[in-house]
Amino acid sequence: MSTPRLFVESDLGPGDEVPLSDSHAHYLRNVMRRADDAPLLLFNGRDGEWRAALAVRGKSALARLVERTRAQTAEPDVWLCFAPIKRARIDFVAEKATELGASVLQPILTRHTAVERVKVDRLRANAIEAAEQTERLSVPEVREPVDLARLIAAWPTGRRLLVCDETGGGPPIAAALGALDEAARVAPWAIVIGPEGGFAAEELKALRDVPQMLAVGLGPRILRADTAALAALACWQALVGDGRSPTPRLAIDYLTSRG
Amino acid sequence: MSTPRLFVESDLGPGDEVPLSDSHAHYLRNVMRRADDAPLLLFNGRDGEWRAALAVRGKSALARLVERTRAQTAEPDVWLCFAPIKRARIDFVAEKATELGASVLQPILTRHTAVERVKVDRLRANAIEAAEQTERLSVPEVREPVDLARLIAAWPTGRRLLVCDETGGGPPIAAALGALDEAARVAPWAIVIGPEGGFAAEELKALRDVPQMLAVGLGPRILRADTAALAALACWQALVGDGRSPTPRLAIDYLTSRG
Repeated sequence: MSTPRLFVESDLGPGDEVPLSDSHAHYLRNVMRRADDAPLLLFNGRDGEWRAALAVRGKSALARLVERTRAQTAEPDVWLCFAPIKRARIDFVAEKATELGASVLQPILTRHTAVERVKVDRLRANAIEAAEQTERLSVPEVREPVDLARLIAAWPTGRRLLVCDETGGGPPIAAALGALDEAARVAPWAIVIGPEGGFAAEELKALRDVPQMLAVGLGPRILRADTAALAALACWQALVGDGRSPTPRLAIDYLTSRG
Repeated sequence: MSTPRLFVESDLGPGDEVPLSDSHAHYLRNVMRRADDAPLLLFNGRDGEWRAALAVRGKSALARLVERTRAQTAEPDVWLCFAPIKRARIDFVAEKATELGASVLQPILTRHTAVERVKVDRLRANAIEAAEQTERLSVPEVREPVDLARLIAAWPTGRRLLVCDETGGGPPIAAALGALDEAARVAPWAIVIGPEGGFAAEELKALRDVPQMLAVGLGPRILRADTAALAALACWQALVGDGRSPTPRLAIDYLTSRG
């Protein structure tokens, strides 16, 4: 039986009793059918991962912390900026970008963006669920949508910008990222992906005027916006981010035993 | 109005009249509401892409070829071997792997594979739809599921094997792929991804005994099987495959006018 793993907002420390949300209480009692003292894992993005015991209190529930199972680790500071797309695909971007370690999910509104409304709460819920289910110790911050022009106008000093340019205006992504020096690799970054209709000419020009901008190509095939976002993030992590570090050694049956 | 782009089995040559399937005829007439002489694009994975004109014949339809719009190009020979997973996720793998240029989709049955049945026809339909919608000139071959042990026993001489090893038994993917010589880069390849429960110890050992095997890690986060497949394929294309070539130059409004 796998151990439920929950993201909470509360601080986590030895002996703490952490109140669980109504939806977590419902999930544990009615969906997972867990009773008093059932083991849980909790994380909040700051204090590592903790083993805890469920304590049922009528219709609500709390978790009694037992011990820390993993220490919080530093993660790459990489924003994923993407134009909203239709529902199933944007859910997918939130889920996969969480697994692939984006620190911020930033919807951007562009000239050719087809979908104007973004359910930010829904994206947040998808990101939390993906972090809970895949051992990540943090949840990306999901921001309110912003006009691309405003985002560029207020571009943070020192944050490097990777633009996926489907018009062929940049070198291949691996060559460009592989040539970076160590100062560039440890800098904060943002990856920007255009909408299905592509960036407008003036948008590409404005992006190119951001200092320390790197425009790259993702190869000869035309990728959907969601595929481009994940391919770029996967390549960025492998070549610049924490994918450069060795994967931690696990016992061969770790995944199976963990459930 | 976008031009419907259809994958067909027939040969394509100047002046040919190509019969369209019932489902293509239905799609063009009843879903897309196209009439006689409406422009189409056709490809078959061998003869490039052709502009054609729709000809309605009662309830069926054919396409009259006008001219070739793109020449067929060579594509990397890279298999994606993955354990079946539940329905929405396997649909997603078929779609994304097609966009990312896999040449073969090979479901593999492993000790910890949770899902035994694979709807191969459904995977094929997903792959065709993804190729039709994303300008790819070919469709990956979708193979019947095979036991991992049998696949390994009959491993083709000269086909290199990239094993995504979540137990930390290999170096980071970018370092490993970046260090390959040109002979290795142009060789045929296969990427193997384990099931959600991970490979069994004897499976990892058998994979490691394949000549020219390369085991790599995908970083510190545990990825779902579908995410791992796409991250590995995206990195492989960027570092070894045709992602090393410059993206073709497009007019800035190419995507918008086309889509």
